[in-house]
Amino acid sequence: MQTIKQMKQFMEPHSVALIGVSRDTGEGSFNILEHLLSYGYQGRIYPVNPNATEILGVKAYSSITEVTEDIDLAVIATPRALVPRLVKECSDSNIRSVIVVAQGFADASDDQGRQLQQELTDIVQSSNTRILGPNTFGTANAFFNFSTSFVRIRMKKQPIGIICQTGVFFVGFPEATLVGKGIDLGNACDIHFAEGLEYFENDPEINVIALHIEGAHDTKTLIDTARRITPKKPVLAFKTGRSEQAAKAAQSHTGSLVGRSEVWEASLKQVGIIQAGDLQEFIDLAGTFAILPPMQKPGVGVVTISGALGIVAIDGCQQFSLETGELSANTEKLLGAMAPSWLRISNPVDIWPAMMGSQDVVKPMVDGLEALLSDDALGAVLYIGAAFDDKWATSLCQLLIGLAAAHQDKPLTCCIYGPYGDEAIKVLQESGKVAGFRTPERAIRALARLSQYSRLRGIL
Amino acid sequence: MQTIKQMKQFMEPHSVALIGVSRDTGEGSFNILEHLLSYGYQGRIYPVNPNATEILGVKAYSSITEVTEDIDLAVIATPRALVPRLVKECSDSNIRSVIVVAQGFADASDDQGRQLQQELTDIVQSSNTRILGPNTFGTANAFFNFSTSFVRIRMKKQPIGIICQTGVFFVGFPEATLVGKGIDLGNACDIHFAEGLEYFENDPEINVIALHIEGAHDTKTLIDTARRITPKKPVLAFKTGRSEQAAKAAQSHTGSLVGRSEVWEASLKQVGIIQAGDLQEFIDLAGTFAILPPMQKPGVGVVTISGALGIVAIDGCQQFSLETGELSANTEKLLGAMAPSWLRISNPVDIWPAMMGSQDVVKPMVDGLEALLSDDALGAVLYIGAAFDDKWATSLCQLLIGLAAAHQDKPLTCCIYGPYGDEAIKVLQESGKVAGFRTPERAIRALARLSQYSRLRGIL
Repeated sequence: MQTIKQMKQFMEPHSVALIGVSRDTGEGSFNILEHLLSYGYQGRIYPVNPNATEILGVKAYSSITEVTEDIDLAVIATPRALVPRLVKECSDSNIRSVIVVAQGFADASDDQGRQLQQELTDIVQSSNTRILGPNTFGTANAFFNFSTSFVRIRMKKQPIGIICQTGVFFVGFPEATLVGKGIDLGNACDIHFAEGLEYFENDPEINVIALHIEGAHDTKTLIDTARRITPKKPVLAFKTGRSEQAAKAAQSHTGSLVGRSEVWEASLKQVGIIQAGDLQEFIDLAGTFAILPPMQKPGVGVVTISGALGIVAIDGCQQFSLETGELSANTEKLLGAMAPSWLRISNPVDIWPAMMGSQDVVKPMVDGLEALLSDDALGAVLYIGAAFDDKWATSLCQLLIGLAAAHQDKPLTCCIYGPYGDEAIKVLQESGKVAGFRTPERAIRALARLSQYSRLRGIL
Repeated sequence: MQTIKQMKQFMEPHSVALIGVSRDTGEGSFNILEHLLSYGYQGRIYPVNPNATEILGVKAYSSITEVTEDIDLAVIATPRALVPRLVKECSDSNIRSVIVVAQGFADASDDQGRQLQQELTDIVQSSNTRILGPNTFGTANAFFNFSTSFVRIRMKKQPIGIICQTGVFFVGFPEATLVGKGIDLGNACDIHFAEGLEYFENDPEINVIALHIEGAHDTKTLIDTARRITPKKPVLAFKTGRSEQAAKAAQSHTGSLVGRSEVWEASLKQVGIIQAGDLQEFIDLAGTFAILPPMQKPGVGVVTISGALGIVAIDGCQQFSLETGELSANTEKLLGAMAPSWLRISNPVDIWPAMMGSQDVVKPMVDGLEALLSDDALGAVLYIGAAFDDKWATSLCQLLIGLAAAHQDKPLTCCIYGPYGDEAIKVLQESGKVAGFRTPERAIRALARLSQYSRLRGIL
C-alpha cells in the first residue's frame, strides 16, 4: 500500500513543482508548464526559474525552498550537474516524489555521469524521497489530465498502462497512443518496473499492462510481481536489446544491463507475460488486450469479402498456431441459403458472392457475421473487408460495433483494407469493442496471443 | 513481341466494350463505365446492355455485334451462364482481348463452373482471342487513366506493376496502393503470370514487378521469364496458400492448384525473386523497391532521436541479417563535435542530446544525416524520428527529401512515429525519394531485402 500511495504522487499529484522550466513558450520550446496547462490539469503548479516572476500567467519561484505549500511532486529539468543539489533541496522541503528529466547520468559514457547518478541513489537511500529517472519523460495520466512530458503528448482515456524506458511511447504512434497511463523509468535509479506494476495491479481504469524492457535492475521483483498479476490482468512485454551490440547501445541509452535474451524470454514466459516479437506486434497487442474479452473456444471463424485474404488468414493461422474453427451445421445451413449454389461453404467464409447476389449488398455480410458470432463452436471472429469510400467506412463501422456490442463475450477483430481502411480501423479501435488491423496476419497474430493468455487464465 | 502487343490491348486499349454494364449508377452500383469516365479515360467506350439506349450520356448497344468500329478490348460482366456465348460473339467480331469479370467458373464447387471454364479455354484454343480471367477485376493503368475494376479504385502514376490473383490489390491499402499498373489474373484460364511479366519487363514506367501468387498453371514459364527479368528489374513475390487448408481454399477462390510451398519458395529464390513473408512485408517491399537505389555497401547507418528505437533497429538488423555499419573516423569526429562530451558516438547515432543542446534544434539532425549519407563506409541510412505536430512533420519531410535528392545513390529510409507520423510517411513515400515506415524493424527488413537484391545484381 505504501508503494501505491507513493506512485499516486507520481501519477495523480495534487500539486507539482516544475524546476528549471523555461520562459520560452510556443512551438519547439518543449515547455512542460505550457503542455500541462493545455491538458487541463487541475492541480496547483509551481514553476521554479530564478530568472522569472511568472510564466504563462503562473507565479514563478526562484527556488523550491521559497514555496511554502505542500508539494506532491517535483519535476527537475536542468543541466545534469545541478540535479543532485536540487533533489536534495526537494527532499529537505519534504517533497517525497521527484522526476529527473535531465540526461547524462548512467546513460553517459563519462565518469561524471556515473557519479551523478550515484549521488541520486545516495539521496534516495538516506531520505524518504523517491526518484523517477533520471533521463525520463516522467509520467502521464489521461484520466487525470496530467503529464510531465516535455514533448506535448496526446493521451487517451483508454485502459492501457505502459511502463517503459523511453519517451517514444509517450509521443505515440500514428495509429495509436498506448498511453492511457504511462510511466517512463528512464535510467531507473530508484522507481522501477515493480512499483509501476503494483500501481496498475488493481487500477480499475487499466485493463492491460504493457512493459517496454531494455534491462532491469530489479529483475526478480519484476518477475515476482508480474507472477501475482497475470492471473488477474494481462501483462505484455516488448524486450529489446537482444543482440550483443544492442546490449551495448542500451548501456548508453538508459545505463541498463540487459541480460541474456533467452533468460529473459524464459522468465517472462514462466510468469504468464505475453511477449511481443517486435514493435508493431507490441502496439497491436496492447490495442487488442485493452478491449477484447478472452477466448472461450480455440477456433476462429473468418468472414471475408476477399477470397484471397481469406487464404492469407489461413496462412496466418498456420504461422501463429491458431485454429480456424469448424462451422457448426446450423451456421453452414444459414450461410448456404444466402450464397449462390455453386459456392462451397467453409471457414473462411467468402461472403462476396452472396453480397453481389443480394438487393441489400451488406445484409449477407451482417447475417454471416451474426451467424459466426452466435456459433458456439467458435472462440473468436475475424472480419476481412474493405472501406471503399467514406460513407461505406462509416456504415461498416456502425454495423461492426453493433455486432460486437451484441456479442460481448466473443472477441471480434477486423482487417480493413481499401482507401478508407485506416479511418475505419481507428473508429473501430476507439469504440472499445472491435480490434482493427491493416492485414489479416496481424489480426491473427493478436488473436493467437489472446488465445495463449486465455489458456493461461484457464478460460480456454 | 506478339505477347506485348496483345497485353497492350488489355492495358492500354484505345477502345473498350463493356458488356453487361448496368444502368444503375452512383454509390454501391459498381458501374465500370462510371468509374472509367471518372478516371478521365480518353479511348472510345461502347456500353452493351440490351435494356438501354444510353448510359451516362454514352450511346449503348444491345449487342456487341451491333458495333461496327474496331474494338481493342471487351469486358464481360454478366451472369456466368451467358459468358461463353458472349466471348464467342467477341471473337466473331474480331475482338482479340476479352476480360471476364464474372465469377462461378473454376472457382465454383459445381460441375457447371468447371464446364463453363472449359468452354472458355476451348474458345481461346480455337481462335485468336485471348482471355483475362474469369473471376477478375481485370486491369488497371494509372499512366493511361484506365481500369476495368468494378470497384472504383485509386491508381497512382508510380513505378509498381502488380500481377495478382485478387482484386484486393486494386482496391488498395490505407497507406498504399500498389497499382501503378495492375493485372488481376483471376482464375487465369488463359493470360497468366508470364504474359504479365513480359509486358512489364521492358516497361520504362515500371521499376518493380510485384507478384501475388496463389497458384499457377504456367509455373515453368513463370520461373523462366522471371529468371530473365530479375537481373534487370526487381521481381517480388507474395506466395499464399501455404498450408493444406489454405490450398483447399485457393482451389475455391481462383481454382488454383497451389503446389507445395517449399518447392515454390526454392524455385522463386533460385531465379532471384525476392519473397515477402506476409502481406505487410509485400506492401513495404513494393514501396521500397519502387523508389530506392540498390545498396553498394553492406552496412546501414542509423540516426535516431530515440535511443530506445536505435536499440530496436539493432535488434531488427540481427533478426534480418543486416549489418549496422562502422562509422568512418571522419564521421565520428563530425558527430562528436555536435554532441555533449558525455555522449559516446557510435552507430546508431543518438542525435537527441545534440539537438537539445543546439540553438537550431533540427540542425544536428540534418548535419548528422548528411555525415552518414556522405560516409563511403555505409550502404544505406535509416532515420528514426518523430512528427510531433503538423508543422514539424512538414519541415521534417522537406529536409529528408532534400537530403535524399542530394544523395541519390544511397538508399534513405525513415521510421516516423508521433501523431503526425503517418502523414509524414505518406509525403516521404510519394516524393519517390525516401521510403517511410512505422517501425524500425519494418524499415530494416525492407533494407535487408534490398541488400539481398543488390547482392544478386552484383552491385553489392
